[in-house]
Amino acid sequence: MATERLVVIGGDAAGMSAASQARRLKGPDELEIVAFERGHFSSYSACGIPYWVGGDVPERDDLIARTPAEHRERGIGLRTRTEATEIDVAGQRVRSRDLESGTDAWTGFDKLVIATGARPVRPALPGMDAPGVHGVQTLDDGQELLDTLARTSGRRAVIVGAGYIGVEMAEAFIKRGYEVTVLNRGEQPMATLDPDMGRLVHRAMDDMGITTVRGAAVTKILTGGDGRVSAVATESGSYPADVVVLGIGVEPETTLAGAAGLPLGVHGGLLTDLAMRVRGHGNIWAGGDCVEVLDLVSGRERHIALGTHANKHGQIIGSNVGGGYATFPGVVGTAVSKVCDLEIARTGLREKDARAVGLQYVTTTIESTNSAGYYPGATMMTVKMLAERRSGRLLGVQIVGGEGAAKRVDIAAVALTAGMTVEQMTALDLGYAPPFSPVWDPILVAARKAVTAVRGAG
Amino acid sequence: MATERLVVIGGDAAGMSAASQARRLKGPDELEIVAFERGHFSSYSACGIPYWVGGDVPERDDLIARTPAEHRERGIGLRTRTEATEIDVAGQRVRSRDLESGTDAWTGFDKLVIATGARPVRPALPGMDAPGVHGVQTLDDGQELLDTLARTSGRRAVIVGAGYIGVEMAEAFIKRGYEVTVLNRGEQPMATLDPDMGRLVHRAMDDMGITTVRGAAVTKILTGGDGRVSAVATESGSYPADVVVLGIGVEPETTLAGAAGLPLGVHGGLLTDLAMRVRGHGNIWAGGDCVEVLDLVSGRERHIALGTHANKHGQIIGSNVGGGYATFPGVVGTAVSKVCDLEIARTGLREKDARAVGLQYVTTTIESTNSAGYYPGATMMTVKMLAERRSGRLLGVQIVGGEGAAKRVDIAAVALTAGMTVEQMTALDLGYAPPFSPVWDPILVAARKAVTAVRGAG
Repeated sequence: MATERLVVIGGDAAGMSAASQARRLKGPDELEIVAFERGHFSSYSACGIPYWVGGDVPERDDLIARTPAEHRERGIGLRTRTEATEIDVAGQRVRSRDLESGTDAWTGFDKLVIATGARPVRPALPGMDAPGVHGVQTLDDGQELLDTLARTSGRRAVIVGAGYIGVEMAEAFIKRGYEVTVLNRGEQPMATLDPDMGRLVHRAMDDMGITTVRGAAVTKILTGGDGRVSAVATESGSYPADVVVLGIGVEPETTLAGAAGLPLGVHGGLLTDLAMRVRGHGNIWAGGDCVEVLDLVSGRERHIALGTHANKHGQIIGSNVGGGYATFPGVVGTAVSKVCDLEIARTGLREKDARAVGLQYVTTTIESTNSAGYYPGATMMTVKMLAERRSGRLLGVQIVGGEGAAKRVDIAAVALTAGMTVEQMTALDLGYAPPFSPVWDPILVAARKAVTAVRGAG
Repeated sequence: MATERLVVIGGDAAGMSAASQARRLKGPDELEIVAFERGHFSSYSACGIPYWVGGDVPERDDLIARTPAEHRERGIGLRTRTEATEIDVAGQRVRSRDLESGTDAWTGFDKLVIATGARPVRPALPGMDAPGVHGVQTLDDGQELLDTLARTSGRRAVIVGAGYIGVEMAEAFIKRGYEVTVLNRGEQPMATLDPDMGRLVHRAMDDMGITTVRGAAVTKILTGGDGRVSAVATESGSYPADVVVLGIGVEPETTLAGAAGLPLGVHGGLLTDLAMRVRGHGNIWAGGDCVEVLDLVSGRERHIALGTHANKHGQIIGSNVGGGYATFPGVVGTAVSKVCDLEIARTGLREKDARAVGLQYVTTTIESTNSAGYYPGATMMTVKMLAERRSGRLLGVQIVGGEGAAKRVDIAAVALTAGMTVEQMTALDLGYAPPFSPVWDPILVAARKAVTAVRGAG
């Protein structure tokens, strides 16, 4: 009989990485592991859903790294379609409901991992729950959307929101031959970029035949005689729709944690220490899309729902639960995406992030080819760089461009982590050969121009 | 009348970057600039020659960033087909020969920039100068090779050497439909990699139909009745050839500098200070392929002929000559290349480099996809990582793989520059989205495994 029981709430990236890593370090005789997942699936790539919907990824199961059965074979007691409904911190127990039978039960824990993820923002507007209106947060969501598409002959998709999910879903529907309208509350798509960079995305989406409507605040989902969605109404007009996808963003799913009195931050995410322990709680960990993370550039907490962080968190939690030692120092805010052939990347602070924390900065924007200009297939990219006034410390980089643009942001991500100045960056020894880079890599070109801007700003 | 005269020897990347930057900072009334170039061309991409020969780049002029006439329009007195033949350091003058007229002249200087580049290693073997045997160091070399190919009907290319130039020229000849044999003195191609990684290149070249002969020490170039090359003889056999390309490597072209008594290093390159001034000489600078550079990882001087360094050197020299201030801290030894669809990259130290400077290290090798495994077109890459024993400091990374493999080395290049440990690297916030990376970037996977190896090594 195991001496300790670990309970994990949430069967995707963070939860199952934590469980798997803990299991690697402690066998079933030392540690019993029970995990609750309200959906049907475990350990899947939510980030891959747009590519499944768009047809790049043929099968749902391609997105699943490890099935519930595989987890169970590895000694993890994963119960799917079982929703945790209450955390009793003092009593060290979790109540759960079997969604098939409707029965409730309490499970005691010695250690608890909260990995409840995020939920899509669903504004409380009339018609929001009408058939044909979909989120794409979970694999179940993706399956429901595809089921809807299979049943629906109309070919008009309206996407609400123009962030990562919005633009990736726009690509997915373009690939399926839909007429795509993206309703954007703001002025430019990709609010994770500065507006001048978002404008480049807007233009490129126009060229792809994606209609992006600016300043489009949704007021209502209209339904037809069959009760299904028929249009999306905004303050400035109404957009016919056979299917609607919500890509407004996500928020931490911390209802249970909040009700249990665990500490939540300003963004609604759980607050943890560097070892991913919930602050003030020695035997409760949290990770993935339900926590806030430290932004190493601004020094502020942020909420970032991203699979790569969730996997790191899970790994770290599992190590600590299993008696090892690991920490998560924080993020610099790197994110990459694409819409058709346009690559989009960012790391560090936008102008408004810098202002919000009192940093003065200079910005520079350059255009460059991804490979030597004479090399066939060279594509253009625009690189914007922010550097702190006086010190010249790198604050952020945004890139929009063709093939090879997005992952160049990693150079800046490492430089941010290391606290480099743009002057130091001009000397970086980056890979050069004509198929891969101009003789001055775009990041070096931007850094050189940023050095001049820092000097000029005094 | 200008108050000072700058003489530049060499009209390619380092020399012309220096001249251009100096001209930006000082007008013709302050600084006269005279430059000698023995070839016909200026400011061209020597690294692009294989892609011109292979047909990817249609025109020779595509490789020229700025012609001699364009330089002259910008107030740089560039004299092509004019070879510097002597440097009189004490007398502050340079002798040059007009290669068209054969006349010699002395030109005085206040400041001198030596950018004489590198020359291909040409072993003193019988037949080495036979028609049909080509180097590919300069644009003139490339033109001569293409002229030969236009005149020659045979389709057997033998390439001597299996380094960057060797494998890139192999690709070029494969694209032209030649039967390609690469004669490699060593056991594995790409001696800039460890042998285990070179083996992967060897295998891939086999699959591309490129014959790579191991341990093939050339003894003689055989010629036919017309005096042209007919075969390359090695100790172990002879290989019929209609054209031979030498890709054995290059050495610093410092004949003039050496004769003038300027300081040369163990690799035969000029030694400079951080501002790229020739050591002990306040008014002489040197940069590009004719200098040695500091390897920041080993602390040793190296000779690396690479356009990206040459451009940086030129920029720095021009700034200093023009009254500004700039320094070149050194390199970490990043290089990328490809042979057909196989990308090859390295940065930092190989195992033998680490041993040579007394570093103890652990190595780890991992395989990963470049994008999410389920994403269409995902390709494989192998990443080898060296970390110092005990400290866990990153020492080097080598990558061989498909699309998206090579430029990932930049992540390691920045981490090396920052002196990061592999443990610190496991927390790097690298760009993740299914089209661009698995949820754990290959560099993170390697770093995680390296952490375990460092711990295990004690």
